[in-house]
Amino acid sequence: MTLRSIDMPHELLEELQTTIDREIPMCSKMGIRVEALDERGFSMSVPLELNRNHQLTGFAGSLNALCTVTCWGMVFLVARQHGLAGDIVIRRSGIKYLRPVESEQIVATCTGVADAERTHFVEMFREKGQAKLDLRAEIQSGGQGAVSFHGSYVVLGKS
Amino acid sequence: MTLRSIDMPHELLEELQTTIDREIPMCSKMGIRVEALDERGFSMSVPLELNRNHQLTGFAGSLNALCTVTCWGMVFLVARQHGLAGDIVIRRSGIKYLRPVESEQIVATCTGVADAERTHFVEMFREKGQAKLDLRAEIQSGGQGAVSFHGSYVVLGKS
Repeated sequence: MTLRSIDMPHELLEELQTTIDREIPMCSKMGIRVEALDERGFSMSVPLELNRNHQLTGFAGSLNALCTVTCWGMVFLVARQHGLAGDIVIRRSGIKYLRPVESEQIVATCTGVADAERTHFVEMFREKGQAKLDLRAEIQSGGQGAVSFHGSYVVLGKS
Repeated sequence: MTLRSIDMPHELLEELQTTIDREIPMCSKMGIRVEALDERGFSMSVPLELNRNHQLTGFAGSLNALCTVTCWGMVFLVARQHGLAGDIVIRRSGIKYLRPVESEQIVATCTGVADAERTHFVEMFREKGQAKLDLRAEIQSGGQGAVSFHGSYVVLGKS
């Protein structure tokens, strides 16, 4: 895990929040917030109240969207940290809903990118003009894993 | 494909729309609408304007949520048609984003449930008090498959 907040200008996290709020109306309506970048990874959150289902637990569509955007945000931060300019696109994802999410503030955490993977990602982008990152995210509820997500993202260089 | 609109009271489609609008705030904000139940399957839609991303195409989180709810709706219809009362829960799903979705009205279609699968589902529910349905949905854009989704749902009988 080399993506530390100490390496990351606070302005970049603010830019990510502003970009999401401004450019993706549903993220704004879900109340998605940048939470933290620390040794566990990169976290974003949504309030349960806006994102509940008919059983008053987290709506699967919102839980997936939160994980999708949190990992997208991680790619955004890694790309920016290395000065790679491009469009970030999700290619595929998979998700397991292990138990209902009952937290009032639902937090998804995208785990860090290993050094070797990061190095490969940056090299690929510089060689080919595009590169892939496979990421994982988790949502906990009551101290237990409640949602397990994996997604495959591509950064496409602007020609 | 045995789930035909001719077998399905119009009131049931209206009940599904009302349930989703009333019980899941984000579905209402996404503008999810019941579209059709026909030989191709069960379709729901959202407007692109509310569900766009920063590239003015369908936001991945909304596309996944639309597919998730459309297949959830299919399970709701099948369960109701057979008089099975229970909570419908999604266990896992996978999605491929094949190309950007540019349609002004984004439509997801959940393909029908084969006779054998439907029979097994109903038998399992009556024997065990719960039963599983694996479903697929697709979103097209410009006449081509743009999103491919599969999800595994469980109906849990109310004790």
